[in-house]
Amino acid sequence: MAEYTFYTHPMSRGQIVRWALHEANAQYEQVLVDWQNRPERFLEANPMGKVPTIVHHHGEHDHVVTEAAAICHYLAEMSAPDLLPREHEKADYFRWLLFAAGPLEQAVLAKVMGWSVPQDRESTAGFGNYERTIDTLDAWLAERQFVCGDRFTMADVYVGSAVDWGLQFGTIPERDAFKAYAAGCSGRAAYQAGKAIDGQLIAEIQARENQA
Amino acid sequence: MAEYTFYTHPMSRGQIVRWALHEANAQYEQVLVDWQNRPERFLEANPMGKVPTIVHHHGEHDHVVTEAAAICHYLAEMSAPDLLPREHEKADYFRWLLFAAGPLEQAVLAKVMGWSVPQDRESTAGFGNYERTIDTLDAWLAERQFVCGDRFTMADVYVGSAVDWGLQFGTIPERDAFKAYAAGCSGRAAYQAGKAIDGQLIAEIQARENQA
Repeated sequence: MAEYTFYTHPMSRGQIVRWALHEANAQYEQVLVDWQNRPERFLEANPMGKVPTIVHHHGEHDHVVTEAAAICHYLAEMSAPDLLPREHEKADYFRWLLFAAGPLEQAVLAKVMGWSVPQDRESTAGFGNYERTIDTLDAWLAERQFVCGDRFTMADVYVGSAVDWGLQFGTIPERDAFKAYAAGCSGRAAYQAGKAIDGQLIAEIQARENQA
Repeated sequence: MAEYTFYTHPMSRGQIVRWALHEANAQYEQVLVDWQNRPERFLEANPMGKVPTIVHHHGEHDHVVTEAAAICHYLAEMSAPDLLPREHEKADYFRWLLFAAGPLEQAVLAKVMGWSVPQDRESTAGFGNYERTIDTLDAWLAERQFVCGDRFTMADVYVGSAVDWGLQFGTIPERDAFKAYAAGCSGRAAYQAGKAIDGQLIAEIQARENQA
């Protein structure tokens, strides 16, 4: 049995986790989840029915992990210690991993959905407003190659995916710092290996839909 | 100099971090941030101008950490190793820390703001919908005392604060699992010590406002 079972859909945040699995050189069995007909063992693992979900077959225990940012970090903990932060990188690593999973994700979702936070309620929303969220990330990335400085860590798989995806879909503005950072991330062999697999799966789905 | 500088406001998510600081027995200097007149050194540390923010004076380095969930975990890493997850607790710990910082925070904010996700776009929103998010957390907590099982970890400071706060403000429904979990968290000495300080600060602010 592979060490990890990976429940995913190629057109989902599962792309983030596939990149992380490849960064970690992890052995995984892929289970593609069809929205209309979700596998029973998937719903047992994650009753919320969301992908990506992984199950780590860890000795005699099966551990379920959900939330793409948590899965990335967990994979580093278990299978890619070189991508964990060193002592003086921990502040930046956890700060920006959580910034991307929290305020950035919220700000982008609000923009996509057309939701706006009334100015007098900005402290209620963790992200305050979209512009300030984007400017804060921009200022950080403008001064360094990766989240923790010169060294690529697992936080970059998650933050890098957010920036890469945002640039691709136009939900994050095309600023120099974002483009340079995304280029640094997408140059990784594991990124390209993961995207090639999901790209192929997406092409197969589209071919089937065109036949139907 | 204290090991940590803690920028906060008593009526903010800073309450989560104060609880974490007390769980970690950390030595901290508190700097209260007045929204109308934010200290220069605070804005240098966190240009986004959000509290809570901590600065860890770590040897010759000053490390800034933002995002309440990141700060909680960072404090465990640096000052409270007993509250870090053990090997077989890591999946649950990171899963639910990120669940609370991501989908739960989003679902509650959307409810408070009156935002709703159209049903055909639920996969765009990480939380899907409010009911499913709440039910998922409910099902998990109904079967265990804390996020990782019998043992309290730093993840419970963050998840516990979300549940405690949600019950208090009516943004999370009063279900048995939530009430039992919140009671288990609020029984901690560090929770009570932290809340006493913030409660006193809030009373002082209100007294000043009543005088003005």
